[in-house]
Amino acid sequence: MHWIREHVSKPEIVASIFWIAIKIILIYVIARIVIKVADKTIDHMVIAREKSPLKIDRRRSNTISILIHNLIAYTVNLVAIMLILGQVGLNLGPLLAGAGVLGLAIGFGAQSLVKDVITGFFIIFEDQFGVGDVIQIDQFKGTVEEIGIRVTRIKSWTGEVHIIPNGNIKQVTNFSTYNSIAIVDVSLAYDADIDRAIVLLNEVVAEVYERTENIVKVPQVLGVQMVGTTDLKIRVIAECTPNKQGEVGRILNAEIKKYLDTHGIKQEKVEGN
Amino acid sequence: MHWIREHVSKPEIVASIFWIAIKIILIYVIARIVIKVADKTIDHMVIAREKSPLKIDRRRSNTISILIHNLIAYTVNLVAIMLILGQVGLNLGPLLAGAGVLGLAIGFGAQSLVKDVITGFFIIFEDQFGVGDVIQIDQFKGTVEEIGIRVTRIKSWTGEVHIIPNGNIKQVTNFSTYNSIAIVDVSLAYDADIDRAIVLLNEVVAEVYERTENIVKVPQVLGVQMVGTTDLKIRVIAECTPNKQGEVGRILNAEIKKYLDTHGIKQEKVEGN
Amino acid sequence: MHWIREHVSKPEIVASIFWIAIKIILIYVIARIVIKVADKTIDHMVIAREKSPLKIDRRRSNTISILIHNLIAYTVNLVAIMLILGQVGLNLGPLLAGAGVLGLAIGFGAQSLVKDVITGFFIIFEDQFGVGDVIQIDQFKGTVEEIGIRVTRIKSWTGEVHIIPNGNIKQVTNFSTYNSIAIVDVSLAYDADIDRAIVLLNEVVAEVYERTENIVKVPQVLGVQMVGTTDLKIRVIAECTPNKQGEVGRILNAEIKKYLDTHGIKQEKVEGN
Amino acid sequence: MHWIREHVSKPEIVASIFWIAIKIILIYVIARIVIKVADKTIDHMVIAREKSPLKIDRRRSNTISILIHNLIAYTVNLVAIMLILGQVGLNLGPLLAGAGVLGLAIGFGAQSLVKDVITGFFIIFEDQFGVGDVIQIDQFKGTVEEIGIRVTRIKSWTGEVHIIPNGNIKQVTNFSTYNSIAIVDVSLAYDADIDRAIVLLNEVVAEVYERTENIVKVPQVLGVQMVGTTDLKIRVIAECTPNKQGEVGRILNAEIKKYLDTHGIKQEKVEGN
Amino acid sequence: MHWIREHVSKPEIVASIFWIAIKIILIYVIARIVIKVADKTIDHMVIAREKSPLKIDRRRSNTISILIHNLIAYTVNLVAIMLILGQVGLNLGPLLAGAGVLGLAIGFGAQSLVKDVITGFFIIFEDQFGVGDVIQIDQFKGTVEEIGIRVTRIKSWTGEVHIIPNGNIKQVTNFSTYNSIAIVDVSLAYDADIDRAIVLLNEVVAEVYERTENIVKVPQVLGVQMVGTTDLKIRVIAECTPNKQGEVGRILNAEIKKYLDTHGIKQEKVEGN
Amino acid sequence: MHWIREHVSKPEIVASIFWIAIKIILIYVIARIVIKVADKTIDHMVIAREKSPLKIDRRRSNTISILIHNLIAYTVNLVAIMLILGQVGLNLGPLLAGAGVLGLAIGFGAQSLVKDVITGFFIIFEDQFGVGDVIQIDQFKGTVEEIGIRVTRIKSWTGEVHIIPNGNIKQVTNFSTYNSIAIVDVSLAYDADIDRAIVLLNEVVAEVYERTENIVKVPQVLGVQMVGTTDLKIRVIAECTPNKQGEVGRILNAEIKKYLDTHGIKQEKVEGN
Amino acid sequence: MHWIREHVSKPEIVASIFWIAIKIILIYVIARIVIKVADKTIDHMVIAREKSPLKIDRRRSNTISILIHNLIAYTVNLVAIMLILGQVGLNLGPLLAGAGVLGLAIGFGAQSLVKDVITGFFIIFEDQFGVGDVIQIDQFKGTVEEIGIRVTRIKSWTGEVHIIPNGNIKQVTNFSTYNSIAIVDVSLAYDADIDRAIVLLNEVVAEVYERTENIVKVPQVLGVQMVGTTDLKIRVIAECTPNKQGEVGRILNAEIKKYLDTHGIKQEKVEGN
Repeated sequence: MHWIREHVSKPEIVASIFWIAIKIILIYVIARIVIKVADKTIDHMVIAREKSPLKIDRRRSNTISILIHNLIAYTVNLVAIMLILGQVGLNLGPLLAGAGVLGLAIGFGAQSLVKDVITGFFIIFEDQFGVGDVIQIDQFKGTVEEIGIRVTRIKSWTGEVHIIPNGNIKQVTNFSTYNSIAIVDVSLAYDADIDRAIVLLNEVVAEVYERTENIVKVPQVLGVQMVGTTDLKIRVIAECTPNKQGEVGRILNAEIKKYLDTHGIKQEKVEGN
Repeated sequence: MHWIREHVSKPEIVASIFWIAIKIILIYVIARIVIKVADKTIDHMVIAREKSPLKIDRRRSNTISILIHNLIAYTVNLVAIMLILGQVGLNLGPLLAGAGVLGLAIGFGAQSLVKDVITGFFIIFEDQFGVGDVIQIDQFKGTVEEIGIRVTRIKSWTGEVHIIPNGNIKQVTNFSTYNSIAIVDVSLAYDADIDRAIVLLNEVVAEVYERTENIVKVPQVLGVQMVGTTDLKIRVIAECTPNKQGEVGRILNAEIKKYLDTHGIKQEKVEGN
Repeated sequence: MHWIREHVSKPEIVASIFWIAIKIILIYVIARIVIKVADKTIDHMVIAREKSPLKIDRRRSNTISILIHNLIAYTVNLVAIMLILGQVGLNLGPLLAGAGVLGLAIGFGAQSLVKDVITGFFIIFEDQFGVGDVIQIDQFKGTVEEIGIRVTRIKSWTGEVHIIPNGNIKQVTNFSTYNSIAIVDVSLAYDADIDRAIVLLNEVVAEVYERTENIVKVPQVLGVQMVGTTDLKIRVIAECTPNKQGEVGRILNAEIKKYLDTHGIKQEKVEGN
Repeated sequence: MHWIREHVSKPEIVASIFWIAIKIILIYVIARIVIKVADKTIDHMVIAREKSPLKIDRRRSNTISILIHNLIAYTVNLVAIMLILGQVGLNLGPLLAGAGVLGLAIGFGAQSLVKDVITGFFIIFEDQFGVGDVIQIDQFKGTVEEIGIRVTRIKSWTGEVHIIPNGNIKQVTNFSTYNSIAIVDVSLAYDADIDRAIVLLNEVVAEVYERTENIVKVPQVLGVQMVGTTDLKIRVIAECTPNKQGEVGRILNAEIKKYLDTHGIKQEKVEGN
Repeated sequence: MHWIREHVSKPEIVASIFWIAIKIILIYVIARIVIKVADKTIDHMVIAREKSPLKIDRRRSNTISILIHNLIAYTVNLVAIMLILGQVGLNLGPLLAGAGVLGLAIGFGAQSLVKDVITGFFIIFEDQFGVGDVIQIDQFKGTVEEIGIRVTRIKSWTGEVHIIPNGNIKQVTNFSTYNSIAIVDVSLAYDADIDRAIVLLNEVVAEVYERTENIVKVPQVLGVQMVGTTDLKIRVIAECTPNKQGEVGRILNAEIKKYLDTHGIKQEKVEGN
Repeated sequence: MHWIREHVSKPEIVASIFWIAIKIILIYVIARIVIKVADKTIDHMVIAREKSPLKIDRRRSNTISILIHNLIAYTVNLVAIMLILGQVGLNLGPLLAGAGVLGLAIGFGAQSLVKDVITGFFIIFEDQFGVGDVIQIDQFKGTVEEIGIRVTRIKSWTGEVHIIPNGNIKQVTNFSTYNSIAIVDVSLAYDADIDRAIVLLNEVVAEVYERTENIVKVPQVLGVQMVGTTDLKIRVIAECTPNKQGEVGRILNAEIKKYLDTHGIKQEKVEGN
Repeated sequence: MHWIREHVSKPEIVASIFWIAIKIILIYVIARIVIKVADKTIDHMVIAREKSPLKIDRRRSNTISILIHNLIAYTVNLVAIMLILGQVGLNLGPLLAGAGVLGLAIGFGAQSLVKDVITGFFIIFEDQFGVGDVIQIDQFKGTVEEIGIRVTRIKSWTGEVHIIPNGNIKQVTNFSTYNSIAIVDVSLAYDADIDRAIVLLNEVVAEVYERTENIVKVPQVLGVQMVGTTDLKIRVIAECTPNKQGEVGRILNAEIKKYLDTHGIKQEKVEGN
């Protein structure tokens, strides 16, 4: 912002130059130390990471640590040069103003990157889900394959890999924490005998429970869920181990239909007669 | 921004250095005190929290308090070093400008984190819902499992766990505060006797009320809700204990159908003849 | 930003220290006064609030006033300490820059909080709706239970409580200000006699008006609203007291159907013959 | 930012204190004047407003003018105190930085308020709509009841009052500026005689025009709008006075149907034979 | 930021006061000139505008020019007063900081206003559409009635006026630039003779082209657009003058149906036999 | 920020005024040069542009170059005046603060303009599409008519012109780069002979390929795409020249239907018998 | 911000001018060096890029490197000129303030550009997808043709090229990483023998697996997926090589239908008898 005042006598100039030199050396030394310390920290983090559940492989670790090293080294050197120029008395205002505008644009552009990293950290820290869990984020459902620094990868059961930036993860639904419920709505003809149907349903679900591994409790027959104009629906629910509701539902569908057919309960809607 | 003026005599330099030394010591001492006070405060908060309804377990408390301790210690030390460098006369403008741009990007990226924490605080402070309540946030409905600092966990009745950042909670619907209403729309054939049907409905709902635990008042038969081209609907409502409307609705469905059948009121739409 | 110039003679140093001491005392005294005044203001506001329509209960008032007291005391003391340090000659730039970045993040995160409070104030000040009114905000309709500083609570007729932050209230529909209109569209068979139907409708609605409490004017038969391919619709509207359109509609549905049946106007669509 | 240099002789200190005193008095006087002028301006505005089309009632005017008076008085006094403290030589940087962060948060939160007021001003200034006009904003249609500083109130024909913040008004549709068009699509059986139907339609609409008040021109028969698989539609349009298209449409529906029936044009779709 | 140094001798004070007086006069004179020049510019712009295609009427011009004059006069005087106070040596930092926060809130609130004006300028400059053109913006279609500084008014053919802020105009569709295409999809029974139908269609469209004013080229029979399960569609297109596709389509509908009927091509879907 | 120190002797005042005069002249000269250079650059750019693929016509070039000239001249002169005032010693802080707030509002409002220009530049630079290509942006599909600095104009095949600001172009689909694929799904009755149908389809598409210009390869019969409850679909695809898939599809529709009819493969769904 | 103090003796002026000259030369030299170093770096990057998987062709590389060279040269020269002017003592505040507002607008407008580049870098670095992969972004599915600095080009199988800015890529679904699953839901008539159908399905899928190249495992018959009112569905899944699920599904469709037909399992829904 200003420079050496000119109303100085000669010995003062010498003293002044001496002071400046000392400060430049100080800046240089501090810059060296900062880079060294940063390198050490990176090494520690890389080693810690290799043991962490994030499972980043060796080769990628190296790439990242070199990248970060370079980034820090360039930044520190740049700042050191600017500090030294500042000591020599250059007015760096314009340079800084330019850098500020550029930095602002980059800062705006990079904010979603920062958000990705912060959210990713909290997903792991809060243990929202782990590798192997079945989760759903928006319309993307599947098994978690990797929780990365910036993105999460989910493999759907049909083989697609969904890659979602962590900052875009708003609501997570985790299917692997608790037992799930299979819901079967049994259609009956409008004039079917409801009470008898419920008795038969209770019989068949108890029988299915005996034979089926993934059902954890005797399924419940809840009652008449809906009375439509030509049929009615009775709801049956079965608690089963996580993510087995599809399989259990298919078994219940088949067994209930066969059992009701055997016992003469009309399920089919017959049109036109 | 500037440094020791050079037009100073020798004793003045000594005085100047003395002043600077005092200030550096002062900075150091204050930094120490700030860290100590912060540590004490964290300890207090951790103890207070362990008794609080937030129910954070011991192990996680420790993790968080160590994390916060480190964060504060690093920050205070960094600031102290910069203050001391400032006293020695280094122009720290460029350093600060760089940190500002970085800080801006982080600030932008972290704003949703801050919003999560603020909203989380108000959810608890305003007692919007508690652990165990049945609530709905957007399309996610279930029982509240945990109200955390940053996220709320809801367990749906089919076993999924929905994890929602607090800052994303815009509208909450709480189903556990008041009695709920079960709504049953009874379809009648177009040429059915409306008045007789209403009398019969009043009889059956009174009877159901006697026998059913979760209905809190005799259900009401409201009247002809809709006149369609081939059928009409009569609405029946029943006030029941919170979250029991599904169960009560199923009972009413079954009993009303059986009662009307018995008394010969036509409900079924017969097509084609 | 700078400190006492060193080219000063001894008495000047004494004078300088004296000046600084005076300023520090001044800062301390002002800080005390600000805290006292703030406490008084809080007390006044709490008392005023207890009489206000906001109906905040005693216990919560206390919690809030202690909270605000602490907040102000900490802030004022912090500022006072910084002002004093500034007098002693410490360069507080770095500290402030750091606080600025943190403050920015908090400011961004807190902006929706500020918006909630401002909007809440205007809802009350402009008398948009009051406790007990039936209103609709987005898809949430119900009776207003509480208009709070930050959120509004609406109880739907089926018993759910919707909690909506005030800043999210964009469009409000108030159903309790004026009389409402019940709309009944009467279906007629395609070959029905329109003119006779209108005469009969006028008779029946006049009769219903006599017997029904919540209709405020004789309902109007507007005319042929729609000519479809197999039926046509005649619209009847009835002005009724606020929020009674459902009840009035049900009565009109039943009475019109019975009256037209009695007088042999074909309403039913007969398919296939 | 700094204070009186200490290398001053005694008379200079006296002069300095004299100067400071003068400036403090100057600040005080200006603060008084600003408040007085503001009060006068408020009074003028209140009087002007009471005559303006905004129709704000007396009582509310008073509330607002007291509110604004207090706001200005507090602000001016606060600024004056800070200016005086600045003269005494206190470093107010930290105070201002804190106020800045708070102000930023409030500024962000208040921006929608400012937007409401600006848009409201332009709605009135550009005469987009007036009290009594029938308008539609998004899905809310009704008669304008009040155009306020911050919100617009619209009363729908079924009695609801929609309250919309001015800043949320993006597209306005005004139905009260021009004559409106009633559109009637007449269905004909697929094998009907198109040319004869058009002749008959022309006869009936001319007749209706004679008898009906709100139609401003003889309605036009536009032609075959659509050829479907089992019927075809002929479009008839009628220019009528603003917001009367519903009423005119109902009259045309009834008269056209009766006329075509009389003249044996098949409109009805006969299924199954 | 600072004031007159006190270590000054008497003649210097006189010189200092003299300098300040000169600067104050200079500020006053410049302020006068700026206001005068601004007034002249406004006058020029008003005159230029009255001749421009924006068609702003005289009365509104006056209102606006007085408004702008006042705005500029107040602003310039305010700035001049602040500059003069700055010369006298008052620390205006706090005042400016307060104004800055207020200005920020207004700036944020006013940004959509600025965007409206900028976009409006470009709509005119780029000649996107003119008064009288038929355009569509989002779901609003109609004839452009006025392109204003802030809003565009569109009159739909049914008489509504849509008022859209220019900044909300994202995509414009202009229907008045080129000839439009009328599309007629002719349904044929599944077992109709396709080749003969195409020959007949070519005959009828050539005949219609001869008789109809708004068709600019002989319409084309494109071929079998779709093969459904029970019918197939042949597409016919006709280039016609802008915005006449509705009228031309109605004529083609009627003529094609009559021609195919005459020549025994089955169009009607016959159900059930 | 400050002005000439008063503790100056007379010859120093003279020197000071001399320095200031020199600087004012320097500012004036630099301002002149900047304007001249800018004018030259504009001329060069206009000439370069007239040869560029942007095809801006002569008249518009002139308008724009005059506009830019004026803009630069006013800006440079304004800055020069402010620099000169700054040299004379006026405190321009308040002026700049005011301009900053105004500039901020304009900056925010103008950001979409800047984004339009940047995106427009990249569309041309990356050769995303050219004039004459058939592209789709959101729901707007048509032939590119003009790629402008701020907007892109697309003419749909029915004659509308869609005008889209470049900054709103998120995803572009270009139909003119590669050959397109015509897809024909042939419905067969449920009991049709699949293998024979596929043989016949292979025969007919080979025959069509011989006769049709725009098909580039023998079309492929892919197989049974879907088995519904009453019919099944066989998919046929044909690679054709860009944007000819509609035409080719119509030919395939007609020929396949006629060929299958001739060879007695049932396509028609027969209801009810 | 200020200039040479006037209370200087002659030799001091000389010294001052000497200092300034040295600094100007220093600025000039550093500017030269920065440009040279930047050029070298660009050359290195261009060479590195030509070997990289980004596959940017030679001609475009040259265009870009010249562009970047010019950009850097202009920027560095501009900054150097401003630094030199700053040394001569010009108050550049106003200039910088103006540039700041302009820069802010550009910064806002350019932020999506920055975001594109950052996201593009991470897509390549994280190996989300490569050229030749089949991916889906929003509704755009196809083969990746080019991953550019700013946009990604995807070619759909029907020949369209979708061009998507990298910053708009939120969720990527990669279809080329794992085997995919073909899903076939076989409809059976309601009274079909489920157990026998499952046995037959197991036979046919095993047979198809033998004959078909792209199926990697014997397909699984999962069970009764759904029981509808008139039919039921049995689900069969087949793991196949990536992106072959369409082809495999078509083969399974045809073979299953033929096999069930042969063995007399009713699949067809027969209406009305």
